[in-house]
Amino acid sequence: MKISSIINIRHVPRTGWVLRGVPPAVAETISDHIFLVTLLSLKISEDLRERGFEVDVAKTLTMSLVHDLPEAVTGDIVRYVKEEEPSYFKIIEEKSLESLGMGKYIPLYKDFEERKSVESIIVKLSDYLATIIEGRRLVALGYRDVEEIVENMENLIKNILKSLTNIQLKDALEKTVIDVLKN
Amino acid sequence: MKISSIINIRHVPRTGWVLRGVPPAVAETISDHIFLVTLLSLKISEDLRERGFEVDVAKTLTMSLVHDLPEAVTGDIVRYVKEEEPSYFKIIEEKSLESLGMGKYIPLYKDFEERKSVESIIVKLSDYLATIIEGRRLVALGYRDVEEIVENMENLIKNILKSLTNIQLKDALEKTVIDVLKN
Amino acid sequence: MKISSIINIRHVPRTGWVLRGVPPAVAETISDHIFLVTLLSLKISEDLRERGFEVDVAKTLTMSLVHDLPEAVTGDIVRYVKEEEPSYFKIIEEKSLESLGMGKYIPLYKDFEERKSVESIIVKLSDYLATIIEGRRLVALGYRDVEEIVENMENLIKNILKSLTNIQLKDALEKTVIDVLKN
Amino acid sequence: MKISSIINIRHVPRTGWVLRGVPPAVAETISDHIFLVTLLSLKISEDLRERGFEVDVAKTLTMSLVHDLPEAVTGDIVRYVKEEEPSYFKIIEEKSLESLGMGKYIPLYKDFEERKSVESIIVKLSDYLATIIEGRRLVALGYRDVEEIVENMENLIKNILKSLTNIQLKDALEKTVIDVLKN
Amino acid sequence: MKISSIINIRHVPRTGWVLRGVPPAVAETISDHIFLVTLLSLKISEDLRERGFEVDVAKTLTMSLVHDLPEAVTGDIVRYVKEEEPSYFKIIEEKSLESLGMGKYIPLYKDFEERKSVESIIVKLSDYLATIIEGRRLVALGYRDVEEIVENMENLIKNILKSLTNIQLKDALEKTVIDVLKN
Amino acid sequence: MKISSIINIRHVPRTGWVLRGVPPAVAETISDHIFLVTLLSLKISEDLRERGFEVDVAKTLTMSLVHDLPEAVTGDIVRYVKEEEPSYFKIIEEKSLESLGMGKYIPLYKDFEERKSVESIIVKLSDYLATIIEGRRLVALGYRDVEEIVENMENLIKNILKSLTNIQLKDALEKTVIDVLKN
Repeated sequence: MKISSIINIRHVPRTGWVLRGVPPAVAETISDHIFLVTLLSLKISEDLRERGFEVDVAKTLTMSLVHDLPEAVTGDIVRYVKEEEPSYFKIIEEKSLESLGMGKYIPLYKDFEERKSVESIIVKLSDYLATIIEGRRLVALGYRDVEEIVENMENLIKNILKSLTNIQLKDALEKTVIDVLKN
Repeated sequence: MKISSIINIRHVPRTGWVLRGVPPAVAETISDHIFLVTLLSLKISEDLRERGFEVDVAKTLTMSLVHDLPEAVTGDIVRYVKEEEPSYFKIIEEKSLESLGMGKYIPLYKDFEERKSVESIIVKLSDYLATIIEGRRLVALGYRDVEEIVENMENLIKNILKSLTNIQLKDALEKTVIDVLKN
Repeated sequence: MKISSIINIRHVPRTGWVLRGVPPAVAETISDHIFLVTLLSLKISEDLRERGFEVDVAKTLTMSLVHDLPEAVTGDIVRYVKEEEPSYFKIIEEKSLESLGMGKYIPLYKDFEERKSVESIIVKLSDYLATIIEGRRLVALGYRDVEEIVENMENLIKNILKSLTNIQLKDALEKTVIDVLKN
Repeated sequence: MKISSIINIRHVPRTGWVLRGVPPAVAETISDHIFLVTLLSLKISEDLRERGFEVDVAKTLTMSLVHDLPEAVTGDIVRYVKEEEPSYFKIIEEKSLESLGMGKYIPLYKDFEERKSVESIIVKLSDYLATIIEGRRLVALGYRDVEEIVENMENLIKNILKSLTNIQLKDALEKTVIDVLKN
Repeated sequence: MKISSIINIRHVPRTGWVLRGVPPAVAETISDHIFLVTLLSLKISEDLRERGFEVDVAKTLTMSLVHDLPEAVTGDIVRYVKEEEPSYFKIIEEKSLESLGMGKYIPLYKDFEERKSVESIIVKLSDYLATIIEGRRLVALGYRDVEEIVENMENLIKNILKSLTNIQLKDALEKTVIDVLKN
Repeated sequence: MKISSIINIRHVPRTGWVLRGVPPAVAETISDHIFLVTLLSLKISEDLRERGFEVDVAKTLTMSLVHDLPEAVTGDIVRYVKEEEPSYFKIIEEKSLESLGMGKYIPLYKDFEERKSVESIIVKLSDYLATIIEGRRLVALGYRDVEEIVENMENLIKNILKSLTNIQLKDALEKTVIDVLKN
């Protein structure tokens, strides 16, 4: 683990915010975001377990921690850039993990991107929820252009929930999402 | 989980740094620190597991995430203030977790403070290592008063290792510590 | 006077603000706060003197300057932490002044905390007024959680004024407070 | 010209710096960089004109101003990400200019990327020189990982100069480069 | 060109903003401002050229770049200070350019101040427009005292337009100003 | 006292630092400076009183507090700009105090500028000492251009001490200056 490189993400503001006018001194960093995603993943995992679902908490938390670490090499690249060549960026991100001495997490990273395991669904939801929470904070401070991202994330969450075929899981996640967002 | 309160630790610079002259724009925040502790805990846990030790990774990661959350209520209080009334501050910290809707983590928090489980040793070491890593970064930037904290942490790590009666564990942790710090 | 330690409070944002979501780059520091308290103390002292009261201006200004200097050692500890063991924190604060080479100001600090002299009443009012002024600025910028502190301070001022038995003094201070806050 | 989008680059720190540990409060932004590139382009253009070369100053300055504007849409993407698919990123950047209402500058942007005109050589050299100037400032402040970028840029400049077949131009540019860097 | 001095304007927040309560981490710097003025000058120049007017684009852009460089020596001095001794400050500013090794731009600077050429009118309008754009951003974030500057700038633009005797030019500039501000 | 205007100096970094490359997030503000000057004035006043000199402490502290308040209107104007027309700036500064509702402090301000009373000597020395203390901090962080200001201030202090005809006072102040600077 090349810690000396990884810790630099603590200085990288998320591109989505700064490109909508939020100064870095006000915007969250990548590490702030990872922290919040990991915490939300913990909450959702435990909510599901309390409702009787099987969740591998160690896997969820590790996936949350790791999901944005490639950005220590690539920086935070916006959706607009990635969306026409997603496979190219997946390769770059896996190479980045490799170069950070974290090659063994590539399967976990792939799992996250493919979103088939319950853990990957939890982390993806947490990722979007964390972005909504930060986005709403920024909108309340007057950064109105951020609203667009918040709405995007709300739709992405709806799509994930809609796509779930396990109705109990869908129900449980819906409750947790509502709980997190009314907070 | 009162997320709206917890996320404010993303704005709180660690008191140890700012009281040694590091401006908040340069110093790490509490959430930056938690992120790094959690990552180091993951690394140490996996190092130990590869060497055949039994470690509950979910527990280690959860403990790392939670270990400084009381500061969302109390702020970051320095050693100097706490050291003569440690039990008072433990009560305050547990009450803080409670008020953050995280009362169920109090046993884990107690475990962390008592440092008996292997997981709590991992998290404590990670806590000190993360502080050394940040401290050295700041010393390299010219913040010389920070050196005192780095030395303190180095001693605390030595003391933990010295206190271990399980020689294999001690050996394994020593190797990991050296590995992290040469990074 | 250990100036090299004291000046570090210029990097410490007030904990009350950052724990309510204000980034350090926007929030005031301890030294910003001391500056404003000292200035308000000057104004109130002179208002009182113009109305015929006897006020020791040197004492008022010195007390204002000194009232938060222990935080150069302790950091800024929030009310929530202090309120159940106020006497413990008083001891810590006096020890801090001592360690800053400012032991001779301990009687003045005690006077401030006991609030019996007219000067200590002036400084306490200035302390609360300065916090209201900064709080309202932050509320206007969209940091809504700060409102709670502003209301607290308004009540503390009311209580001080209510507790005064000298009716002329009470009247004069009331006028000054209104004058400062309509500003 | 979608000014409301373009001005957001004033909040975007250059990714190369922050990924090497420079906090945004210390690092330059994209607009800081563009400002310096434009100023250097002016200097080099005038140096060349004084030595009898024909340079279209309006073209040089416009190219300098425009050369990083696509980053108002894409953010600042590091070399590591771009280098295996340069043509993909060129398309994205041209699309970005288009979406900023600056489609008419695409030929100029292409010229810059192809580096055939004397103006494009001036702007490219200015781009690298501006990065060296900022990099050296950061190295002097203790951000040692930045040195790698400085060396890279120095080599890129050497390569440009080496590739020039017009010996007089090469000589003149060499002198200007030395003059800028000894500054 | 003493680049090592000039680049320091990248750290200087505009005095008008900070004196109205905007923290430097939120306010634009002088170099941010110059960047925006230069970009707007480009836009206005090209708008005019498209409408058949003759504009020396190289001159406009150079003038934009240079118009605030004296502030690398003097800092950003507010209108209130300058308005009673404008000629004194003009001398100081010319001396500053001289000391920055930019003496050859003094005639251009004088042209800018006298506002007789079409290029100087373009740059002056861009200067005011850039200030309005930033000011409106700050007002939207809750910095209400900034409104005064925005209104001032709006009046200054009106006065420039009113003073133009060339009706076609006036018409064309009016359209461009409206176009920029509705952005 | 127009507090709402005065408090804005808490956002104004000192021009001397930022024009030598120190970012506002690292440099002190005007209010930081006033705080330190006032504290040093207190120390010097008490040192002198302990050595038997008569000092009006209220006057010293008030003068310290007030000495840079005109900058709430004018901003921080560097020596280079002021030195050829000092009387013009004195008028502007007095007008500024007036407009801040602090007209009654103009005689005190004049006293400070004329430096005849022992209190004004104390405040002037504190002003220079505070600048040296901050300057040395910045030099230690790698901001080497700041050294020039530190040396200037050291000379100004020497000149003040040299100009004193009261040998006891001179001796006492020399001791205090040495004491402050070895800190």
